[in-house]
Amino acid sequence: MHEFELIKNYFSKLSKNNKSSLNLNDDVFFDKSKQLIISIDTYIEGIHFIDFKKPELVIKKIIRSSISDLICKGVKPKYYFISGSGNSKSFSPSNLIKISKSLKQEQKKFNIFLSGGDTVWSNKLSFTITSVGFSKNIILRNKAKINDDIYVTGDLGDSYAGLKILKKKLNTNNNLKKYFEKKYYLPSLAFNLTKKLLFFANTSIDVSDGLITDLEKLINKQKLSYKLYLDSIPISKNLKKLLVLKRLNKISYISRGDDYQILFTANPSKSRIISKMSNLFGIKISKIGKICVPSKKSEIIDEKGKKIALNLKGFYHKF
Amino acid sequence: MHEFELIKNYFSKLSKNNKSSLNLNDDVFFDKSKQLIISIDTYIEGIHFIDFKKPELVIKKIIRSSISDLICKGVKPKYYFISGSGNSKSFSPSNLIKISKSLKQEQKKFNIFLSGGDTVWSNKLSFTITSVGFSKNIILRNKAKINDDIYVTGDLGDSYAGLKILKKKLNTNNNLKKYFEKKYYLPSLAFNLTKKLLFFANTSIDVSDGLITDLEKLINKQKLSYKLYLDSIPISKNLKKLLVLKRLNKISYISRGDDYQILFTANPSKSRIISKMSNLFGIKISKIGKICVPSKKSEIIDEKGKKIALNLKGFYHKF
Repeated sequence: MHEFELIKNYFSKLSKNNKSSLNLNDDVFFDKSKQLIISIDTYIEGIHFIDFKKPELVIKKIIRSSISDLICKGVKPKYYFISGSGNSKSFSPSNLIKISKSLKQEQKKFNIFLSGGDTVWSNKLSFTITSVGFSKNIILRNKAKINDDIYVTGDLGDSYAGLKILKKKLNTNNNLKKYFEKKYYLPSLAFNLTKKLLFFANTSIDVSDGLITDLEKLINKQKLSYKLYLDSIPISKNLKKLLVLKRLNKISYISRGDDYQILFTANPSKSRIISKMSNLFGIKISKIGKICVPSKKSEIIDEKGKKIALNLKGFYHKF
Repeated sequence: MHEFELIKNYFSKLSKNNKSSLNLNDDVFFDKSKQLIISIDTYIEGIHFIDFKKPELVIKKIIRSSISDLICKGVKPKYYFISGSGNSKSFSPSNLIKISKSLKQEQKKFNIFLSGGDTVWSNKLSFTITSVGFSKNIILRNKAKINDDIYVTGDLGDSYAGLKILKKKLNTNNNLKKYFEKKYYLPSLAFNLTKKLLFFANTSIDVSDGLITDLEKLINKQKLSYKLYLDSIPISKNLKKLLVLKRLNKISYISRGDDYQILFTANPSKSRIISKMSNLFGIKISKIGKICVPSKKSEIIDEKGKKIALNLKGFYHKF
């Protein structure tokens, strides 16, 4: 069973009298009267991170992944909670020192505060991170309008290249290796853009499961279609180099997730303010497509103007 | 490493500029300006619940355990979040129906609302429950006063008897078996007392790890001692029966935890209002001891007036 079905079939009804749950169809909870936003994610060794050989990097990756859910909604995270399950090897004194040091750095970088959690003994290593923020308004899902432009921040695909390199499924020179491994562990969040998003984004999500999957999630309750231009989807110079070197397909790299960039739609009239903000904060923001009428079929257009078929849409949990 | 040491040595410093974390020395987070209280707990199969043969009961047990952290502080829970890690057997359609039905019943019983969470695939079954409530004030730990009476709600020890029976480490007649198994899965929370606690309790905690362990946690930053009277510690008629039948020690049953009763201290002048509330809500509240001067040694006095030694203080995680 697909995890979205699981939620829809068995749990959505439990939240029907609870507006703040956003019908369990969002990555966050939003109590408007309390101006409270909460996001909760679980990360398991072997699934969400490869292993725990570099605890100082893993802990940064999962903290960024968690606060990314708030940032993409226009909400600055304030508090975070860690619930860790592991054994004496994972939580050895030397690992704990590394974890603690990394958390201190992330606290400073994103102005967040450790606020609680839980530690339990288990042979299976996992973390549940809860992020909490406060805001009068947030950007919701399923608020795209026909003719909206589709935008994404930063670059996509670097993290997936890093994952393949770390898993020894892809080999390249040491410089590129280092670059992609770093991108896998330390995604660059569009943090400084957070509050500005409220001025121009109609709807938004973070790219965690893959560009196409997340775009479809973003508008899953709306009768709309989309058109994406592969050429406009932003990738780093290093990824461009790697794709050429290894004769790899761009599409399979930009649709695998773990990017933690912000995917949003905006009215075409917002184009100028968006490029202004992009310059002001030094954050790349690329126009990658359009929201279209529901009668059309969603499509991705390649460099030569041809439609491309896409089977592998992204990452999800199946039970 | 003891889990308290782990928090103290590696994580407390990360929360030092964050008052709301209560120095990570409490089961809850409390942002006074936002009137926000959050509690997070992780429950693992084989540790916090025996197995998942009765998902409808396990899910109630962990929800009650989680909201108990708020209730004992005088805070009514409002929202809860579930993050579940499991496989297709644990999260089979028939199990999901049972889980969903149980959640619906708990929602009605405690007036709480499912608000989000996460579902991830794992061969190890675990749940992280986040409970959220709102209140201007809460009852904190480490606010006991010398000469305070020590109270506990309900009965202790039934849950531990249930655990031993379920683990086939204790055998008895079917009626008693059924009674204790039910108490293991469905602790009776002193829910109706929640808001009233603020009128008389100086400090409070829920009995989750064992009476003695939790009492010591309750005053761990204070220079105080305590005196407990074994005879006054409340146990059910059925547990009395079982102890006699099996020649078991009361002390080892009341200090094992999973009771989810409220342990609190109050000024002796509150004695009348406490017994009034007890009658009004039909909730047993027993005076079991005294908070004493720091120069004394903490002690537990048995039925014959003798001090008893206690080695096994309760349940904690060691890494």
